[in-house]
Amino acid sequence: MKKLIILGSTGSIGVSTLEVVAACKNRFRVLGLTGNSNLDLLERQIQRFHPEVVVVGNAVDAARLQLKYRRKLQVLYGPAGLITAATWPGADMLVSSLVGALGLEPTLAAIGKGYDIALANKEVLVMAGTIVMAKARQHKVRILPVDSEHSAIWQCLKNEPAKNVSRLILTASGGPFWRLSRQELAKVDVARTLAHPTWNMGRKVTIDSATLLNKGFEVIEAHHLFGIELSKIQIVIHPESIVHSMVEFTDGSVIAQLAIPDMKLPIQYALCHPDRSANELPKLDLPKIGKLTFSKPDFTRFPCLRYAYQAAETGSTMPAVMSAADEIAVQSFLDNKIGFSQISKVIAKVLKKHEVTAKPGLKDILSSTEWARREARKYIARIG
Amino acid sequence: MKKLIILGSTGSIGVSTLEVVAACKNRFRVLGLTGNSNLDLLERQIQRFHPEVVVVGNAVDAARLQLKYRRKLQVLYGPAGLITAATWPGADMLVSSLVGALGLEPTLAAIGKGYDIALANKEVLVMAGTIVMAKARQHKVRILPVDSEHSAIWQCLKNEPAKNVSRLILTASGGPFWRLSRQELAKVDVARTLAHPTWNMGRKVTIDSATLLNKGFEVIEAHHLFGIELSKIQIVIHPESIVHSMVEFTDGSVIAQLAIPDMKLPIQYALCHPDRSANELPKLDLPKIGKLTFSKPDFTRFPCLRYAYQAAETGSTMPAVMSAADEIAVQSFLDNKIGFSQISKVIAKVLKKHEVTAKPGLKDILSSTEWARREARKYIARIG
Repeated sequence: MKKLIILGSTGSIGVSTLEVVAACKNRFRVLGLTGNSNLDLLERQIQRFHPEVVVVGNAVDAARLQLKYRRKLQVLYGPAGLITAATWPGADMLVSSLVGALGLEPTLAAIGKGYDIALANKEVLVMAGTIVMAKARQHKVRILPVDSEHSAIWQCLKNEPAKNVSRLILTASGGPFWRLSRQELAKVDVARTLAHPTWNMGRKVTIDSATLLNKGFEVIEAHHLFGIELSKIQIVIHPESIVHSMVEFTDGSVIAQLAIPDMKLPIQYALCHPDRSANELPKLDLPKIGKLTFSKPDFTRFPCLRYAYQAAETGSTMPAVMSAADEIAVQSFLDNKIGFSQISKVIAKVLKKHEVTAKPGLKDILSSTEWARREARKYIARIG
Repeated sequence: MKKLIILGSTGSIGVSTLEVVAACKNRFRVLGLTGNSNLDLLERQIQRFHPEVVVVGNAVDAARLQLKYRRKLQVLYGPAGLITAATWPGADMLVSSLVGALGLEPTLAAIGKGYDIALANKEVLVMAGTIVMAKARQHKVRILPVDSEHSAIWQCLKNEPAKNVSRLILTASGGPFWRLSRQELAKVDVARTLAHPTWNMGRKVTIDSATLLNKGFEVIEAHHLFGIELSKIQIVIHPESIVHSMVEFTDGSVIAQLAIPDMKLPIQYALCHPDRSANELPKLDLPKIGKLTFSKPDFTRFPCLRYAYQAAETGSTMPAVMSAADEIAVQSFLDNKIGFSQISKVIAKVLKKHEVTAKPGLKDILSSTEWARREARKYIARIG
């Protein structure tokens, strides 16, 4: 049995991960779970999967849970609790599915412990891809993508050497606003943004999908995960979200991975690889779908895409700064402090002001994200 | 340098193979070429590629060529010549790209000699798949597909075990008559049939594409090549011919291979595998293509598809009989002796009358095809 620790078990990916665990009977044992505000769900998960350790957001919730479960469970809280849980003894794999910067340090700690990482937390590679991949190589740890796009590329690459790759082609649904003009984009509200057409995701990821910055993050992740230079990573808009990404090889042959959109498929692939256990997921029926469409991304209406490539080209602390500025901007949009089109303006402003550090360590990255959050808040206070 | 013998070098696949050989400088040496009626082209190939042996259709042409090239070249003719060329000493690979039953015995002879086979000649596996694959296993010979569909499946399967495969999905352009009614199909003429929309192929293959029997042959080939049962091999109509085929795995993930249609791509993959050398072939631009469409095949308007599955299920000599009856029927259509819709009728008639042999050897297969040709001719004489 493979022993799992799941960071962010009450989030969208965490819930799907536990559904996969439940469906693959006797294959997995859950050692650790973590949740923040949804304690009802976390308790149901505890009662069903019997972890050894759980982490919650604060000391009061931790104490209450500890009193309830007594010696059956170790209850921790906060960032230090996440690191303890991520390195809990006896695990085989960490499912890293927190959202935002919070997941970076626990994920690095688990790598240091030699645990394979099933990675859904984009910020881990966006903020510190170079450090994370180097540490994974050092500890002979595999970083297995859980994202549908990166899982697709992983499946398409199979055992082909990187030298055979001419392009990674990431597909993007385009988000809910793909067809809107710049004027219309300026007017969209939170409710409309959260209504994503094909994927059921958390709020932060849904907003990032609407600005397409999410796709920009994925470009940076793909660059680190597969060791492919940025100029060879392209984006194609594909509203049906059936082709999850593609690899073009040097001979011109393109390999694509397709499936009905469901996060449980890439999660299962990362957890069970190289096995492909049968499951209850709906199977692809292309004649029923009828057609698949493709178009070019628009870097003008969706400037976040451009910023992501630029930040990635600059490298160093720049992608982490972008990610941090985006966290603040998205939260401000959700709080109705700024409009949709101002999300990219906040990011642009902070990126422009940032001066990168040469060969940054983890501390440099974390302090530059703190700086970026402050800058983003200052700018929002001015324009909001 | 890989040493090649190319059967059918003046045909469509043979010509493309030599273009690939010319483009991959210093990678290949051509030991043998064979042509039938297009002697001008064969001579140009001799002068460019300097083979050690060539085979032509008849003794007179052979003698003329032998006198011209003297000791520089061994010139042979007819079926015995093909076998001698296919087993010419010092080769690494036979490119088996004759059309029809003629290629079977030379291909088996090359397998016996231990040469890898780049296989374009459908009839080799349709007629004698069980015998050919068993002999290949015995002699540790690889049968590498040159067909775009089977090359696609080969690339999609990569190193996945057969137990992980739930479906092979062969794409079919649908041919030029995909949208015609049964009444309209009955009236189409030879000129219209030879105008295939996407692939530039020989006449026989073009007619087989229009009846969709070609796709039926490919189902049978895929069954033998990849060891996948017939019930797991499906056909999807895809008029754009960009997705060349797909594999669905047991977890529901579908891997597809895409490219601008050009036979030089699968030929190069078979010749150079596992290398993927850069080439001058046009690269896929999905946003430019815009959309890919898919629909179900119609087994009523295109009964040859149904006959192919039925013949394959029966097995034994039945697929060989189908192939032989088709050769006669297609030739009769090209000679304006029968109409387009009568091709399938000839095949149905001969299949219905055939009694299979248990565990047929090569002789049984060849004699049953002789029988099928006679039956087809008799029936055509009656209805034509």
